[in-house]
Amino acid sequence: MSDLIREEERLDDLEINNLKIIQNPKVFCFGIDAVLLSDFAVIKQNASVMDLCSGNAVIPLLLSAKSKAGVISALEYQEDIANMAKRSVKYNGLEALINIDCGDVKNIRDLYKTQSFDVVTCNPPYMPVFGGLKNDSEKLSIARHEIKCKLEDVVFAASYILKYGGKLFMVHKPHRLPEIIQVLVKYGMEPKRLRTVHPFEDKEPNMILVEAVKGGKPWLKIEAPLIVYNKDRAYTEDILRIYGKA
Amino acid sequence: MSDLIREEERLDDLEINNLKIIQNPKVFCFGIDAVLLSDFAVIKQNASVMDLCSGNAVIPLLLSAKSKAGVISALEYQEDIANMAKRSVKYNGLEALINIDCGDVKNIRDLYKTQSFDVVTCNPPYMPVFGGLKNDSEKLSIARHEIKCKLEDVVFAASYILKYGGKLFMVHKPHRLPEIIQVLVKYGMEPKRLRTVHPFEDKEPNMILVEAVKGGKPWLKIEAPLIVYNKDRAYTEDILRIYGKA
Repeated sequence: MSDLIREEERLDDLEINNLKIIQNPKVFCFGIDAVLLSDFAVIKQNASVMDLCSGNAVIPLLLSAKSKAGVISALEYQEDIANMAKRSVKYNGLEALINIDCGDVKNIRDLYKTQSFDVVTCNPPYMPVFGGLKNDSEKLSIARHEIKCKLEDVVFAASYILKYGGKLFMVHKPHRLPEIIQVLVKYGMEPKRLRTVHPFEDKEPNMILVEAVKGGKPWLKIEAPLIVYNKDRAYTEDILRIYGKA
Repeated sequence: MSDLIREEERLDDLEINNLKIIQNPKVFCFGIDAVLLSDFAVIKQNASVMDLCSGNAVIPLLLSAKSKAGVISALEYQEDIANMAKRSVKYNGLEALINIDCGDVKNIRDLYKTQSFDVVTCNPPYMPVFGGLKNDSEKLSIARHEIKCKLEDVVFAASYILKYGGKLFMVHKPHRLPEIIQVLVKYGMEPKRLRTVHPFEDKEPNMILVEAVKGGKPWLKIEAPLIVYNKDRAYTEDILRIYGKA
């Protein structure tokens, strides 16, 4: 299987179901946000799942172990990252469950039928293009900044492909919550669940996890905060459980 | 001074600056939400402050001790509650600082000049009229349910009387956050700060504190969660500090 791994790439252990993932630090490596999102997502048995802005398919791979989804599709804009994702899927022998597509989320209507998925997950680029320095590497920039995919593109795409009652699970930055809520509502996606993720219990959050339901009735459940580290800088029990260590 | 206190009323200690407040359990008694809001509000020296849906003026009384506001106005719809508030102000000798008006927040344009206040505080009725049982007492119902004052009325009124850059501080229920954000943005009030209040650190919040700035730029700061009780059911240090006990 080592012919699936190319120069500058490495094979990392996902530490669940013996899954491996091919990564290239110069292009894209997954972070804790993907792990938390895969835990936050509630997926029913046999559900059809679409992961938008999928990167190296870390979320589809994690969901293959953490859910009983019937089919998991992934859409990634960058051809070589989609190719790396396909090789990871093949390495794990998951071709029958996970399907990787290379395409632009803005062309969603040309790529998929409307109302054809039960669940959408998305760990989108967080940073507006006007904000902060862009990364030197163009590929990393596309993964982190809203160059090829803006929040509104993701939400429109999710709303387009979801069935009524279908759910979007997204991880994003706390400071953009008002915009996230406005864009969700604009496209008929009602925010139903919110969890803030804090590095320490007395610190402000650095991530938010959001669930929205297509056509849902207004009523947001804000959950207990998710704390990453104890005071002694060890992972909290919640995080150990999510990483499968508790 | 006891002639200021009527039958069925009692005089409670606000436990700050030796302040007292007249309350009637059948009509309205303040709760922790008012105390937390008065701590959450950031008020500059000599600022002009308006407290909407003021009830028995607990927030103006607390702000007289916790801030250096130049003038504090209060608007209350129910005549006998406004009267009780006026007697509390008189009891504490604060007539020069706190002014109680009786009137309908929906008539804000007839009551005050536009752009005439630096700060608005509001602990509005939380519960929509269609949701849950209404309280037996009509006066309590008006204080708790959106019978005479809806969220949108409060936000419109705040936006009308605030100067550009002026701030609204509000306490509300977590499940209504999406609606709160949408209504704020509708009236040019940008959500800038959010704090969730949790009874225990591992429980979901039962209150939220929201700061919005008239004409502010989008960027929400979500703060560390405010926890009310420790595991041993004693108040946390944060709460003791807010109550002036730490």
